[in-house]
Amino acid sequence: MKQRIAIDMDDVIADTNQKFIDIYLNGEAPRFTIEQLKEKSFHELLDEQEFRTLFRNVYEPGFFRDIRIMDGAQEVVNRLMERYEVFIATAAMEFPNSFADKYEWLAEHFPAIHWRNIIFLGDKSVLNTDYLIDDLPRNLHTFSGEGLLFTALHNRHETDYKRVNNWQEVAGLLL
Amino acid sequence: MKQRIAIDMDDVIADTNQKFIDIYLNGEAPRFTIEQLKEKSFHELLDEQEFRTLFRNVYEPGFFRDIRIMDGAQEVVNRLMERYEVFIATAAMEFPNSFADKYEWLAEHFPAIHWRNIIFLGDKSVLNTDYLIDDLPRNLHTFSGEGLLFTALHNRHETDYKRVNNWQEVAGLLL
Repeated sequence: MKQRIAIDMDDVIADTNQKFIDIYLNGEAPRFTIEQLKEKSFHELLDEQEFRTLFRNVYEPGFFRDIRIMDGAQEVVNRLMERYEVFIATAAMEFPNSFADKYEWLAEHFPAIHWRNIIFLGDKSVLNTDYLIDDLPRNLHTFSGEGLLFTALHNRHETDYKRVNNWQEVAGLLL
Repeated sequence: MKQRIAIDMDDVIADTNQKFIDIYLNGEAPRFTIEQLKEKSFHELLDEQEFRTLFRNVYEPGFFRDIRIMDGAQEVVNRLMERYEVFIATAAMEFPNSFADKYEWLAEHFPAIHWRNIIFLGDKSVLNTDYLIDDLPRNLHTFSGEGLLFTALHNRHETDYKRVNNWQEVAGLLL
């Protein structure tokens, strides 16, 4: 049997942080420049009220539909599928409005991934795949297989997990 | 840590077959009576064309929203939650129109189940819970924990799995 990889969506195959950056910079009087936003996470830069205002966008239908694909994700995921069984596991349950957007986004950008291999869930500790590629340390913490931390601004100081900085590094490690 | 139970929705906590019976009997010139429909599954009774026509209803938005709760499910699931961590794991990916219906149905009838514990997926072999209560033998076949086959007309001849005939029997076994 092929080994199995579960792959997160937001900030792993989908460049969700870039969408937040676009929204922020197009908002009213942004206090930070694109350069600053590429160096620190919104959690570090914004005050609580600003952060909540920005984050509220995820509850809007359509938010997840037009997010850019993370660089290299399409090519490497397609190559991984030749050697592994690939599942997309996304914590969509927190945002019920995201279900259709996420499903359609995957159908458009990753048409080779069968619906059988898509998982919308809340708590990734129920997964028993061999690998999990995720940007959230808390998801890797409870995962029973080998976790790979996909680098994002918000996790750049985390040292507890094997790190992959981009999709080329995923390919180097798993292919 | 509490043991974990994954519980299927259709024909386990939701009486989906009863909804099909209602639709069938309200359709054009049904060939079978309610008594016959309670003895054999639609797969056995209908020809392929009739079955496909009936089954097509699942793709309609709203189909999964007003399904009756399976007898005893609410009470026993709530009692199970005192002793176990309970997840609802439903193969919603086959029917993308069902996402909102299923989510709202759970929120209405099982409000104590947190969104973190809801899983929409296709292939249940990725679950690593201790138990899976499901009416589909193929889901139990690939499950790594202890599977319990929840009796439905379509699985009544199946002998490969431990069987629970109703929610009282689930309580008897797990509580």
